[in-house]
Amino acid sequence: MSVYEAIRLRRDVRAEFTGDVVDDATLWRILDAAHRAPSVGNSQPWDFVVVRDPATLRKFADHVADKRVEFRNVLPQERAETFEPIKIEGITESGTGIVVTHDNTRGGPHILGRATVPETGVYSTVLAIQNLWLAATAEHVGVGWVSFYDAPFLTDLIALPEGITPIAWLCVGPVHEFQQIPDLERLGWRPRRPLTEAIHHETYRTP
Amino acid sequence: MSVYEAIRLRRDVRAEFTGDVVDDATLWRILDAAHRAPSVGNSQPWDFVVVRDPATLRKFADHVADKRVEFRNVLPQERAETFEPIKIEGITESGTGIVVTHDNTRGGPHILGRATVPETGVYSTVLAIQNLWLAATAEHVGVGWVSFYDAPFLTDLIALPEGITPIAWLCVGPVHEFQQIPDLERLGWRPRRPLTEAIHHETYRTP
Repeated sequence: MSVYEAIRLRRDVRAEFTGDVVDDATLWRILDAAHRAPSVGNSQPWDFVVVRDPATLRKFADHVADKRVEFRNVLPQERAETFEPIKIEGITESGTGIVVTHDNTRGGPHILGRATVPETGVYSTVLAIQNLWLAATAEHVGVGWVSFYDAPFLTDLIALPEGITPIAWLCVGPVHEFQQIPDLERLGWRPRRPLTEAIHHETYRTP
Repeated sequence: MSVYEAIRLRRDVRAEFTGDVVDDATLWRILDAAHRAPSVGNSQPWDFVVVRDPATLRKFADHVADKRVEFRNVLPQERAETFEPIKIEGITESGTGIVVTHDNTRGGPHILGRATVPETGVYSTVLAIQNLWLAATAEHVGVGWVSFYDAPFLTDLIALPEGITPIAWLCVGPVHEFQQIPDLERLGWRPRRPLTEAIHHETYRTP
């Protein structure tokens, strides 16, 4: 699959998992793609915790369900009604969670390029996630990023040592299909912004 | 170009720019790829400031040169010697800077998925950068992320309004070739970590 096709087809998947579990060879290729991401000072600060124990998936799904209710309860009525039918995770259905974590101490004290912009450390780990996502799309494997969780809960759940931060829980599994239009656009949560509005020339004030 | 090929060929480019400027149609396709990135709550919080004014490129390059000296001066001797021959930017040679910025207010107060993990806002903008990078690679256009700068300097240089944060300066331009091995690995700054070390099962403590 071409880069542009993968970028176009890639969706944040919640409802389209088949229930099959991604096989190990495919999972390796996807993680290898993630591991080829650029990183500040070549620090490669990411790790991948592959979670398949049904009890762990269930515990995380229950936690996420609680967080969903908390979010719904603070929404104004129109937003709450639009939110109601939107599925926010496929934790147990996908059969595989990949927790992407970040180690800001990796590479020692002198990270080339991180002295002036310290956030580039964690940005590196996020770049790896997009590589993973596009490689998965080329394998017809769906990825759904779940962010309805409290970081300390997830840290405990998968026994992250001090100093290792969870960046994302990704639901990863084979899919029936990729939706043509993102869920949040299709279900009326938020429309697409035209690209022309996002491009500026020479300064931000001159679109 | 296939996704996997782009992921393998993609380099953080400093020295291989041809001096030609990327044409507008190609630049549009690359920015369109960035704009198709996933974003928390479909907030699409990114913008792209395309900088080509030679005076602006020169000013930024001069600032980066100062920051390079500051970094070198705090390195232990072995690291300073390894750092010396490493080129850290191609700001004027690439002919085009793309400053990727982040607007954390875009999408209003209720961002679906950002309530528990606020950092997912800025992570969305970083995902867009990796789309841009891979699309550029497929176009035989190099991208070099420069992070040797003080954020307030860059904010002033391109007149970012209050609340808009610079995330990256990307040097973007046609290249002679992509290096086979990343500069920082080839020049002895930091080697590649084996993927097996990055993969864990069920918990972080069980590699």
